[in-house]
Amino acid sequence: MARIGFIGLGVMGRPMAEHLVRAGHQVTAHNRSQGPVRALVEAGAEAASSAAEAADGAEVVITMVPDSPDVEAVVLGEHGVLATARRGLLLIDMSTIRPDTAREVAEAAAARGVRFLDAPVSGGQAGAVEATLSIMVGGDAEDFQAARPLLETLGRTIVHVGPVGAGQTVKAANQLIVAGVIELVSEAIVLLEAHEVEMGPAVEVLAGGLAGNQVLERKAAGMLARRFDPGFRIDLHHKDLQIVQAAARDAGVAVPVTALVAQMLVSLRSLGRGGLDHGAILTLIEDLSGRGR
Amino acid sequence: MARIGFIGLGVMGRPMAEHLVRAGHQVTAHNRSQGPVRALVEAGAEAASSAAEAADGAEVVITMVPDSPDVEAVVLGEHGVLATARRGLLLIDMSTIRPDTAREVAEAAAARGVRFLDAPVSGGQAGAVEATLSIMVGGDAEDFQAARPLLETLGRTIVHVGPVGAGQTVKAANQLIVAGVIELVSEAIVLLEAHEVEMGPAVEVLAGGLAGNQVLERKAAGMLARRFDPGFRIDLHHKDLQIVQAAARDAGVAVPVTALVAQMLVSLRSLGRGGLDHGAILTLIEDLSGRGR
Amino acid sequence: MARIGFIGLGVMGRPMAEHLVRAGHQVTAHNRSQGPVRALVEAGAEAASSAAEAADGAEVVITMVPDSPDVEAVVLGEHGVLATARRGLLLIDMSTIRPDTAREVAEAAAARGVRFLDAPVSGGQAGAVEATLSIMVGGDAEDFQAARPLLETLGRTIVHVGPVGAGQTVKAANQLIVAGVIELVSEAIVLLEAHEVEMGPAVEVLAGGLAGNQVLERKAAGMLARRFDPGFRIDLHHKDLQIVQAAARDAGVAVPVTALVAQMLVSLRSLGRGGLDHGAILTLIEDLSGRGR
Amino acid sequence: MARIGFIGLGVMGRPMAEHLVRAGHQVTAHNRSQGPVRALVEAGAEAASSAAEAADGAEVVITMVPDSPDVEAVVLGEHGVLATARRGLLLIDMSTIRPDTAREVAEAAAARGVRFLDAPVSGGQAGAVEATLSIMVGGDAEDFQAARPLLETLGRTIVHVGPVGAGQTVKAANQLIVAGVIELVSEAIVLLEAHEVEMGPAVEVLAGGLAGNQVLERKAAGMLARRFDPGFRIDLHHKDLQIVQAAARDAGVAVPVTALVAQMLVSLRSLGRGGLDHGAILTLIEDLSGRGR
Repeated sequence: MARIGFIGLGVMGRPMAEHLVRAGHQVTAHNRSQGPVRALVEAGAEAASSAAEAADGAEVVITMVPDSPDVEAVVLGEHGVLATARRGLLLIDMSTIRPDTAREVAEAAAARGVRFLDAPVSGGQAGAVEATLSIMVGGDAEDFQAARPLLETLGRTIVHVGPVGAGQTVKAANQLIVAGVIELVSEAIVLLEAHEVEMGPAVEVLAGGLAGNQVLERKAAGMLARRFDPGFRIDLHHKDLQIVQAAARDAGVAVPVTALVAQMLVSLRSLGRGGLDHGAILTLIEDLSGRGR
Repeated sequence: MARIGFIGLGVMGRPMAEHLVRAGHQVTAHNRSQGPVRALVEAGAEAASSAAEAADGAEVVITMVPDSPDVEAVVLGEHGVLATARRGLLLIDMSTIRPDTAREVAEAAAARGVRFLDAPVSGGQAGAVEATLSIMVGGDAEDFQAARPLLETLGRTIVHVGPVGAGQTVKAANQLIVAGVIELVSEAIVLLEAHEVEMGPAVEVLAGGLAGNQVLERKAAGMLARRFDPGFRIDLHHKDLQIVQAAARDAGVAVPVTALVAQMLVSLRSLGRGGLDHGAILTLIEDLSGRGR
Repeated sequence: MARIGFIGLGVMGRPMAEHLVRAGHQVTAHNRSQGPVRALVEAGAEAASSAAEAADGAEVVITMVPDSPDVEAVVLGEHGVLATARRGLLLIDMSTIRPDTAREVAEAAAARGVRFLDAPVSGGQAGAVEATLSIMVGGDAEDFQAARPLLETLGRTIVHVGPVGAGQTVKAANQLIVAGVIELVSEAIVLLEAHEVEMGPAVEVLAGGLAGNQVLERKAAGMLARRFDPGFRIDLHHKDLQIVQAAARDAGVAVPVTALVAQMLVSLRSLGRGGLDHGAILTLIEDLSGRGR
Repeated sequence: MARIGFIGLGVMGRPMAEHLVRAGHQVTAHNRSQGPVRALVEAGAEAASSAAEAADGAEVVITMVPDSPDVEAVVLGEHGVLATARRGLLLIDMSTIRPDTAREVAEAAAARGVRFLDAPVSGGQAGAVEATLSIMVGGDAEDFQAARPLLETLGRTIVHVGPVGAGQTVKAANQLIVAGVIELVSEAIVLLEAHEVEMGPAVEVLAGGLAGNQVLERKAAGMLARRFDPGFRIDLHHKDLQIVQAAARDAGVAVPVTALVAQMLVSLRSLGRGGLDHGAILTLIEDLSGRGR
């Protein structure tokens, strides 16, 4: 069993840390607010008052925080992981951040003798709770092999996709596809409803062919019922599409449809719907079709 | 067993008609070129020199032709189905055409005492050959029930989605989603390749999450290998997106992403790629990213 | 002075016909509703009960009707121009229609020995009233020279831009640019207002540089004041962008921005704003930015 | 006459600084490369080896550098303007940068008792050489009045558009409109050429109506001749549209067409055309229409 520092106990991080505790690892956890830390301590973890303290003496540190600047803060900051990290520490960042930030943090870590993997996840809160996350990992193959047993405690599909940053790039591609497919399914639903098609059998037949996708499988029912309790919030998907666009721009890749979908997320936030589930992209297509409620 | 007139023996129609012959129905077939007719006659059908002749005495007529004007010609034209149709005939159009054309043809049929279903399919040539098509049917519930046994000879998922035209609207929604998802997967692939991600595991992990879709499952391998032998041609998908946009415009529904994807299909045709599989949308994103071959 | 049949006395056609009467021509006018005909008769014209009657004995016929089907009806229909047209008649269609419809009508006319020019206009109602229209003419150079004196009675800038259909294509390009520029000015205005910039000097400086355009000169004041009394209605501009897209598709030309702007006009109509001036594109950008009223 | 520090002697800055020297001001200039400095010294200026040295003892400092980070470096950096600025200095940044960077620099300046104006320009190299620039100024009204005489040495239209940052926001709006209009004119030109319209009279009539704009007036001839020597480079316009999109995102403003145009600039750069004049947007529409050379 490993000594693990775990930083970031949000809706994703908290159930992930609990799986590690239950698996018998010695987990020292840090979080900005103390509520989640206390809950984890009751489950058997120890509390740390800073990222540096969580990393002190750890063999592995996992970070799971909201955005690129947060990772920079908890790793590179004054009381960050690198302040106390011992040589040979394996630092696994499971946040969703910019690929170039991942590479910058990896360089700073390497300068301190710390190994780095970027290992963002998909599967949402349910995947974190049920330990069925998909985990896309960038970094050295050797480090990936070292991390694999731990990651298998957290998810079901764990793949090594390339050097540092590659994990984040795959996550970016994932978010690109998800937002776009929700948008397409929204156009389809509004078109079908406007033509008074029976939606149950229509969705069934769409899901059964080449148009079939997980948004139809998992989210269409909620979208048809206009239930938009999150789930994954528009605000976060907006952030992720900014990452996608930056990664595309850096590589000179054209993403015209994604650029248009990103504009829709800007609109949804301006319309006060940033806190709704990303399935609420449907409401913008309704508004644009004069069918808003 | 039924007396069936079958009109249109293209890559889809021919295997469909063969299934009906093999199931023991008495099929009289018509096609513009005679080669496919002779092949079907060898399998046990009779040949007709016009749509009118194929419909003469039939209980059911099935039409499977390329586009809206073709359906108008073989049904409403001088030597068309309605010229000889007996009262009570069940006319099933399985072509992909405009919903409003379906409604016009249905009205003309009704005026002659002919019942009409629009029953477009998805599943492509493979689905036609293997009798695993999805069939989305618009029309009266009673007519649908009458047609169902025949349709079960041709496909696996057969659903009634509403009144006449509804089948075509669902098919339009299907084509909207398929074209859009191919475009999104293309953006994702070019982005990942530009960042030198390992594509095998990347596609695997994308396919396993909320980004998962049938384009990734069935077409990504061909797209990664730049194999674009059709399949379903860009030219046809271009035609279908014109139908989608007309149906959306008629209903006042906004389809901004589809409008943009439709422009890409215009470009691909102008670039001489209209005969390639629709997976070749990838090549336009490559061109736009300065990565064309 | 010429014997002229004039068909279509709408907001554009009526002042145009009046200019011809005042210039001393012998005008026989036809319109669906009789009010405008009576007004023109008081000014010195004669009334005709059909397009055919207006064309009977005329040396020149001018048509100014709303859309492609209307031109087909008044020229090719049972009581249309060609029913009575004498050989050598010069038919000038000044409506805004599809270039391919213009070519079809020209062919039908030629078969009857009738010469045809397509001569759509820009400049709006004010341009019609003040005889300052721009007129873009397609057809034979000789016919253009014959028509020029008459057209100079109606407009100020009269140019020959190519064979039959070319006038409509230039008009399509005009409408493409106008709609797009209104959209861009709308994005700029909402951006500037959101940042609390002083709009008067901002518009002044924008108008003075490479960003300068006639929309800023003539329409920005109304847009800033949210005055959207037409002017040129969204409904008509929507129709015109359908013509643009058809002309582009026929020629295999990609018009991605225009396709997106056309979607916005679909939205505005669905939102019940089709009767407003096209400057109201601004309201959609406001809505999309959460700043609608 | 004033003591002026001038930082940044690029294609714009050099002729601007010369105008100030010729007007009798005492100019101390700094530039990264020394060639332009030597030329200016011959004209009567003094040379400074750093921004700090140029600012030392100055009453006014003008900065004219490529991008946001450059302004931060020459103002806030170790050897930057604020290192030597005396209280009451008037700092005028004439670069095109992000509005929020302008506000940050203004705050840092205020903390040192330095007054700040953002005063970006339009009019290009020709405008700089001929002192006919348009200058859009953000900042205190009093500071604007103090700067006006100097700015009148450099440009013709000088307007105060609001508080600090407003100048940059108006410049952003300017670049939004210019890029968009070039794109629209490109769609129009390719459409007209594809239909074999005579381009000379077509452009003349378009320029004369509501579609009229400065791109048609000043750039269409070069675009029709496919002359794309800069002028204003695609690379710079790409940078500016990133600023536009950031400013829009910060304010929650939707700019869907601009987002699409920005993607085209990404493509043009990836296609190796970043060094061409922005009129070369035309070449992408040609490529997309299968009409590239």
